[in-house]
Amino acid sequence: MNANESLAESCAEMGRRAKAASRILAITSTALKNRWLLQAADALAKAQETVMARNAQDLDRAGEFGLSEAQIDRLQLTPGRIQAAAAGLRDIAALPDPIGRVLEGSTRPNGLEIRKVGVPLGVLFFLYESRPNVTVDAAGLAVKSGNAIILRGGKEAAHSNAALHLILQQTLEICGLPGDAVQLVTTPDRAAVGALLKLSEYIDLVIPRGGESLIRRVAEEAAMPVLKHYRGVCHVYVDRSADLAMAERIVVNAKCQRPGVCNAMESLLVHRDVAAAFLPQIGQSLKQQGVEVRGCPETCRFLLEAIPAKPEDYDTEYLALILSAKVVDGLDAAIEHINRHGSQHTDAIVTSNLSAAQKFTAAVDSAAVVVNASTRFHDGYEFGLGAEIGISTDKLHARGPCGLQELTSYKYVVTGSGQLRE
Amino acid sequence: MNANESLAESCAEMGRRAKAASRILAITSTALKNRWLLQAADALAKAQETVMARNAQDLDRAGEFGLSEAQIDRLQLTPGRIQAAAAGLRDIAALPDPIGRVLEGSTRPNGLEIRKVGVPLGVLFFLYESRPNVTVDAAGLAVKSGNAIILRGGKEAAHSNAALHLILQQTLEICGLPGDAVQLVTTPDRAAVGALLKLSEYIDLVIPRGGESLIRRVAEEAAMPVLKHYRGVCHVYVDRSADLAMAERIVVNAKCQRPGVCNAMESLLVHRDVAAAFLPQIGQSLKQQGVEVRGCPETCRFLLEAIPAKPEDYDTEYLALILSAKVVDGLDAAIEHINRHGSQHTDAIVTSNLSAAQKFTAAVDSAAVVVNASTRFHDGYEFGLGAEIGISTDKLHARGPCGLQELTSYKYVVTGSGQLRE
Repeated sequence: MNANESLAESCAEMGRRAKAASRILAITSTALKNRWLLQAADALAKAQETVMARNAQDLDRAGEFGLSEAQIDRLQLTPGRIQAAAAGLRDIAALPDPIGRVLEGSTRPNGLEIRKVGVPLGVLFFLYESRPNVTVDAAGLAVKSGNAIILRGGKEAAHSNAALHLILQQTLEICGLPGDAVQLVTTPDRAAVGALLKLSEYIDLVIPRGGESLIRRVAEEAAMPVLKHYRGVCHVYVDRSADLAMAERIVVNAKCQRPGVCNAMESLLVHRDVAAAFLPQIGQSLKQQGVEVRGCPETCRFLLEAIPAKPEDYDTEYLALILSAKVVDGLDAAIEHINRHGSQHTDAIVTSNLSAAQKFTAAVDSAAVVVNASTRFHDGYEFGLGAEIGISTDKLHARGPCGLQELTSYKYVVTGSGQLRE
Repeated sequence: MNANESLAESCAEMGRRAKAASRILAITSTALKNRWLLQAADALAKAQETVMARNAQDLDRAGEFGLSEAQIDRLQLTPGRIQAAAAGLRDIAALPDPIGRVLEGSTRPNGLEIRKVGVPLGVLFFLYESRPNVTVDAAGLAVKSGNAIILRGGKEAAHSNAALHLILQQTLEICGLPGDAVQLVTTPDRAAVGALLKLSEYIDLVIPRGGESLIRRVAEEAAMPVLKHYRGVCHVYVDRSADLAMAERIVVNAKCQRPGVCNAMESLLVHRDVAAAFLPQIGQSLKQQGVEVRGCPETCRFLLEAIPAKPEDYDTEYLALILSAKVVDGLDAAIEHINRHGSQHTDAIVTSNLSAAQKFTAAVDSAAVVVNASTRFHDGYEFGLGAEIGISTDKLHARGPCGLQELTSYKYVVTGSGQLRE
């Protein structure tokens, strides 16, 4: 067996073990899954020193990997972050179990009882980057939703992830659950990812969390479904009837509160009738925040600090203090622009007109459509779903924040008393 | 522009038109969609003679395409079948509209109102074979669920489909709906399918209905999600506690009532403790029905007409009067066998023991798990979902029968009063 075959075989073995563990997890009681979540939380909180010592080994090597200040910050585990990860597991224990929920049901005229029941997907393969506490969140969400998970974190967090994984696996076994329910890919060999992405027999869903290039690579290579989280080119449209002071606060919050994330605003659309009143005012606020505005000719007329936008600006996710801006003829033009240039992530309208709000929310084809609030609220916690494993920009299966429910499928359970088909 | 480019461009044009039509359908009222369904039904019923004349042209050519008797029967439209298709449209009009349903919702502590609302997928691409009445069903389901659809029927039904499509499109326009909501691929060039499968920008979901090779080809080529309907290797497990007379009726019904369909039984598992009592008895019934049994050595001992099974028999979808059979040690062995050899389609247990029924339905990982009834009930109509466009053997998005709901996604509608993220 050469090195490639040996790698393929060890990946297949991970897949087989994960599938076997998933069969057990699928019929594990809520009580036992919650017991593990709470035990793992306690063990994690107690192992704080050990975990931080292993994390220090990663931090020592951060220079070798050329990590930026921000990346090093994300990699670092502090007592507060470890306690927060433990608290996250306790929060997941407190969430309702999506497995066994009866989604719908009926008794048919022939007496057959039909129930549509929530079931796990099976085995998840989760790829993610720097932040080691994601290891804990993902394992907690997977097990609570009855799924086995194969984790593949970044090589820069290898020691931290190994320490966290050991705690998760040991507590699984202490609770009488299969340790293979949570497995960690330990080889830094990138070919392991390719080998795992072929295992459609064992892996039911791949969730890549990271940059667009990682997601595209995974989507191209994977033989199984991929939960994709692409770009967020998010808009705020200021309608003719908008409360302009509210619009100003929403635009500043959506653009500036955390510009580097997917639900931050990237493009401003302003109704022609309020352009003269709104643009100079918002220009001042954005200037104070250090935001560069790239506008259409009319925007530049009213917002003197703006520089002319190029066509590609309206399709760009800046993830920075830059904003594209455009004056539009009205609601229809705003909807048309968003459906053409947006990324179906999060788009907002500021309006006091009910029918404008209704039309916007019906016609804009995005995972979240927001009226009179910041785009930044598009998030599993903010929506009340509890923890999330990602935000889907797909329309099939799950759309928007993916929490426990989105990691499930369903089956039909049909109970009869000897019924035959005629 | 060469022929290939010209074909690609005309396919892209279909996609663009479908997407534009889907934007309008997405915000069309239930009342208007239902008005079209009823008008199309009336127009179809009235056009019976015309449609049958066009169908006769297809029947005249059936020899050229080398169709079998059964295929010719499927191709033929009779007054009864045309009236049934019209009635199908009226049935769809009577079903609840899945668009705009509020699936979940809450008001958050900060006052944000969150609603998860049913929305269309957008554009469907539906590939299917002989039966022309499927053209009508698919268009009705698509429009009622707010989706535009591109239809690609078999070349053997080209005239029939063109006649039906004309009625559907004309009535759309009479109702003030976009005719492009229902488009028909008229070129027999198979390259058109390849060109359409590349249009992920315009087409949101592909639904291939036909043989396994068609589905595999589509799944490999498609740049967008595919709703897959693979094999049905369906089992009936006769438990130790089964009412053996009931088991006999269920096995005969599941195997023989319509052996050529996906939810027909292909494999019989019998608990060792009842093998001696059950197998000779079922052997007689199956012999009367002309069923060939391929069994394990123990099956052959009790069921003298059985011939020895080869290993691959237990993975085979016969779609014919052939049945594989195996004696198992008990419930766990039956579950293990089904999860290994089945196709996650439909599997049944016959038992009078409640805990056996509970364990079987929880542990068997199939789209439908059935207790004390025939596998043949796994069907959208039988489950009370109304018409179905197919049965999904996938676990992501939709599983089992796909009716109106399964042709939808959802969006989050968030309504605030100026909320900002802190």
